[in-house]
Amino acid sequence: MIIRIPDFDDISLARERIRPWIHRTPVLTSVTLDRMSGARLSFKCENLQKAGAFKVRGATNAVYSLDDAQASRGVATHSSGNHGLALSRAAGCRGIRATVVMPRGASRAKSRAVETYGGEIVTCEPTMAARQRTLAEVIERTGADVIHPYNDARVIAGQATCALELHEDAGPFDAVVAPIGGGGLISGTALTLAALAPGTRIYAAEPANADDAYRSLQGGQLVTADAPDTIADGLRASLGDMTWEIVRERVTDVLLASEEEIVDAMRLVWERMKIVIEPSSAVAIAVILARPELFRDQRVGVILTGGNVDLDDLPWS
Amino acid sequence: MIIRIPDFDDISLARERIRPWIHRTPVLTSVTLDRMSGARLSFKCENLQKAGAFKVRGATNAVYSLDDAQASRGVATHSSGNHGLALSRAAGCRGIRATVVMPRGASRAKSRAVETYGGEIVTCEPTMAARQRTLAEVIERTGADVIHPYNDARVIAGQATCALELHEDAGPFDAVVAPIGGGGLISGTALTLAALAPGTRIYAAEPANADDAYRSLQGGQLVTADAPDTIADGLRASLGDMTWEIVRERVTDVLLASEEEIVDAMRLVWERMKIVIEPSSAVAIAVILARPELFRDQRVGVILTGGNVDLDDLPWS
Repeated sequence: MIIRIPDFDDISLARERIRPWIHRTPVLTSVTLDRMSGARLSFKCENLQKAGAFKVRGATNAVYSLDDAQASRGVATHSSGNHGLALSRAAGCRGIRATVVMPRGASRAKSRAVETYGGEIVTCEPTMAARQRTLAEVIERTGADVIHPYNDARVIAGQATCALELHEDAGPFDAVVAPIGGGGLISGTALTLAALAPGTRIYAAEPANADDAYRSLQGGQLVTADAPDTIADGLRASLGDMTWEIVRERVTDVLLASEEEIVDAMRLVWERMKIVIEPSSAVAIAVILARPELFRDQRVGVILTGGNVDLDDLPWS
Repeated sequence: MIIRIPDFDDISLARERIRPWIHRTPVLTSVTLDRMSGARLSFKCENLQKAGAFKVRGATNAVYSLDDAQASRGVATHSSGNHGLALSRAAGCRGIRATVVMPRGASRAKSRAVETYGGEIVTCEPTMAARQRTLAEVIERTGADVIHPYNDARVIAGQATCALELHEDAGPFDAVVAPIGGGGLISGTALTLAALAPGTRIYAAEPANADDAYRSLQGGQLVTADAPDTIADGLRASLGDMTWEIVRERVTDVLLASEEEIVDAMRLVWERMKIVIEPSSAVAIAVILARPELFRDQRVGVILTGGNVDLDDLPWS
């Protein structure tokens, strides 16, 4: 099978396609975090993005890439997280149907949010086999196009627009740091910067408790993890074949953060920057604070991926 | 005694004077809050300001208004809140001494923050008489200039720059809403808009549990409150003679919010806008949501005053 990796034209097209539907999020700086890290940090605030995370970029690009005939049959995915939310919103914007397969027992907050955006939920047993079987049934019944949360060129091109804006507003950078889960965001980030600022080092930030990307890059072959246990719930997925291809070629290194470092970084940002970020976002800051020698006196772009947090269940309470 | 109320030249001068030392904070919008209120809201995010609150504007203007001889003797105030912090920072920027009189028992977090910015703390008994006596002793010993937190033309002119930026970035508005405690911010806001957009209605948002400004405006004479009990700790002060003069002449109305409405609005902003605001900021949103008929289909500017919150003591936990 030939993998069609997005090129810079795909990314530029994605930017025009999604522009009416997303925020151009601000880039913030913090004297305190600069002092603590010894670097000059620019934070791309995707926590302030529509639906609370960068995921709307890829989902919106995918939905608006469909021709009218395909669009009329809708889109579908299985996701209990931000991608299901983002896809529901994107489909709602275009006025087409989104079906989200969710395991029984997924949080009520998440399913309510999907419904708020007009997505249709189909529940199934909480196993990967059941999720895939249920999704297959949805497709057979509706003819919907499956939009994978990250292993999809349209999604990767959409996520790549985030680094494009960051580079335009605050670049060029010596290094850019973004979290890695399934690898859609870091892949898009790496592709954008390979085109615009090829000398930039690209670091993927990963929870040590979900270190499949780290082990993949160390060993030179794709390793997957089975339901890793980390507070960074957006980063529990493993790379797909397409994102692994890009990560292997373009990511400088994968840096790890402990659960304690993640929580400390999250709290630090709330207290000093006065913005709400989710644990997955904090991983990018945690790895910088843990390895300051890599970034000292450098200009560093940092992607804060999302801000969807349950305020009744904060990790320090 | 003649009260010298700042004019628009004072405000323009203040803006130039403080520009190098403060952030031009962003103005955010929220589809969710627009839908809930029926209005088009523009939020001026002073929670993202240096030292976490708008207070640096007034304190910095006051400190940089001093001539060199006076500056060499330093500045002083009594404040256990954001003004003490802001004055310490402003004095640190200019390289002069700030003395902050704080009552015994003030929070360790607050006093640590004052010290971080280089302010010198003098503790006293927690009564108003002791605070004033101690401040008088500091002045006698050092010759420091007293910078009152709000009843001071230099401070009011500094706070007025916030509405100036908001008007430039997102105005004109049908109405502007800002919290009221001692009245420095609402006075500056009213003076700025009287010059730039005189038709704009000016609403002061006040906790019902600390309704001295409301009662003052209703009765036509200045009423003060003694240690009112509200979660909005930045709004416990009463108006001074200078701020009362401006409020009486220029504020359209004072709108009240209950403690429950304040906490609900605070949580709503954290959850939906992904920014950390303190209870005092939330009062401005609470009054809009409680009286939507006043703002329906209108363009409304809202000042979110600060984001200094103890994450270990959140009102919904």
